[in-house]
Amino acid sequence: MREFAWIGKAGELFGARHPGVPVGIGDDCAVLDGAGPTLISIDTVVEGVHLDRRVMSPADMGWRALAVALSDLAACGADPRRPISALLSLQWPDDLPDAALDELAIGVRDCALAHGCAIVGGDTVSTPGPLALTVTVVGATARPVLRRGARAGEAVVVTGPFGAAAIGLAALRAGLDGEAARRCGEAYRRPRARLADGAALAPLATAMIDVSDGLLQDLGHLCEAGGVGADVDLDRVPLDDATRETAARLGLDAVDAAAGAGDDYQLLATVDPHDLPELRRALPDATVIGLMRAGAGVAATRRGKPYEPPRRGYEHGKTV
Amino acid sequence: MREFAWIGKAGELFGARHPGVPVGIGDDCAVLDGAGPTLISIDTVVEGVHLDRRVMSPADMGWRALAVALSDLAACGADPRRPISALLSLQWPDDLPDAALDELAIGVRDCALAHGCAIVGGDTVSTPGPLALTVTVVGATARPVLRRGARAGEAVVVTGPFGAAAIGLAALRAGLDGEAARRCGEAYRRPRARLADGAALAPLATAMIDVSDGLLQDLGHLCEAGGVGADVDLDRVPLDDATRETAARLGLDAVDAAAGAGDDYQLLATVDPHDLPELRRALPDATVIGLMRAGAGVAATRRGKPYEPPRRGYEHGKTV
Repeated sequence: MREFAWIGKAGELFGARHPGVPVGIGDDCAVLDGAGPTLISIDTVVEGVHLDRRVMSPADMGWRALAVALSDLAACGADPRRPISALLSLQWPDDLPDAALDELAIGVRDCALAHGCAIVGGDTVSTPGPLALTVTVVGATARPVLRRGARAGEAVVVTGPFGAAAIGLAALRAGLDGEAARRCGEAYRRPRARLADGAALAPLATAMIDVSDGLLQDLGHLCEAGGVGADVDLDRVPLDDATRETAARLGLDAVDAAAGAGDDYQLLATVDPHDLPELRRALPDATVIGLMRAGAGVAATRRGKPYEPPRRGYEHGKTV
Repeated sequence: MREFAWIGKAGELFGARHPGVPVGIGDDCAVLDGAGPTLISIDTVVEGVHLDRRVMSPADMGWRALAVALSDLAACGADPRRPISALLSLQWPDDLPDAALDELAIGVRDCALAHGCAIVGGDTVSTPGPLALTVTVVGATARPVLRRGARAGEAVVVTGPFGAAAIGLAALRAGLDGEAARRCGEAYRRPRARLADGAALAPLATAMIDVSDGLLQDLGHLCEAGGVGADVDLDRVPLDDATRETAARLGLDAVDAAAGAGDDYQLLATVDPHDLPELRRALPDATVIGLMRAGAGVAATRRGKPYEPPRRGYEHGKTV
């Protein structure tokens, strides 16, 4: 497909007018109305590294690329009442059919609609290599929540259940059927950025991150940024029934998946204990899984014993 | 090289504090102080498509990726007194040595310094494919200049000379020696975004674009966006002596290169004739090469005769 043809297609799919976006797709730059601190982040997904054609449709790939990028806005407490926008750079392999590109763009569009996000620009290039998508997201907030800021004595808080995406990927690869397996697979193929949860946490969180590399590894990032340590009780980490059931059918340990695997894009934050009652009103699903302490590093326990995960997370470039 | 090692390196190279950037590299998002319209654009370059390892060093590749992206800010009239920032997403092939990545990052850093740009974030992933760099740039201006807006009777204005980069690439591929060839090669390997020129043009331009695909093709984009046509006299298009000399040595036509080839990243704008005296004061190097007219399409003449270029420009995906 030619570049200009795709730009025309993108204009149809992404050309809706959005408040706060006077100029969207089609010019040298998009123009956003700025006021106060702007959040901006970039993320790339590559087929064969982050995207697996055997278990994901082109639409899934488009959805996932955008959702993963939006998750960084959630992690900084982007205000959902302020414009959220994205730019998409697509590298398409010469042998990819046009229909696949159309499907991919529809996946991006659906994800944008689900998250209230405007697609304001893009770039398309052919590549002799694999399909890759780079997404830049822009949001705004009066008070960004950073990775640094956690203090000893604060509660370690997480949103929603963990492990579903990792178990879902295993289920997709195994071709497992049934509703529970399907729901886990959906968690992997179509993750949601927790924008509403991030905004609810933002006024109370002293530090926040989205869990993309794995719960323990990303908690390690908060510890390092804040110069503190953390104790967590893995028995408190929320798991949903579909994850438990599917893990059992696969002979996998759901707690290992929850502790070590990323891809759930839940949020992890630290909150002063005095603010926990207010947090429970703002975000009833939030769960306290541990406490920050002086020192460094993450110490996890399971059934009262020290826990050493089989896999602490996923570092790009180390494993493919 | 591991992702976290590269993040540390990036922090060293790009960690300087910049006004207007309260949070740069290292968190989930960068935080920019926003006020008024924000310009944002994304561009990807891929080795084997836009980057040629035989004629460019890794540092050249890094420079070029950033400069090409910044050129879109120039094309919208970004205000150089307002913060200009960039995010870089790097896809590195597994077999690329660490030293090449370091050099590439230094090329990005040098280009950022030369343009007064803060590098505020990034992402690195390994890829089984070719080296690719996606750059998102952010700037600001009170009055963005768009591609649409040209009217019949307005002057077609260009900055600086054309053709140097295309002739330079041919010289690099031919291994041509000498100062003139070296200067043309430099125009290709290390283009400059015309941020100062864009800011000088912005108060007077009714439409503006940066010439990346080719002068006639990009002028066609202004015509299409404005619903007008254009007549240009190619004898008026500025060419520098090094380009003429090197083209002659290679047996190439410098005017063909100036008309049809991109990569110079000069600016092309339309200006009301009444504003030309003021433009000449603000930007003495600006050259009028034609007039916008009613109708559609670009009609070019050379030595008084209709000109049909051998190559109207470069469309990604059509040629590799």
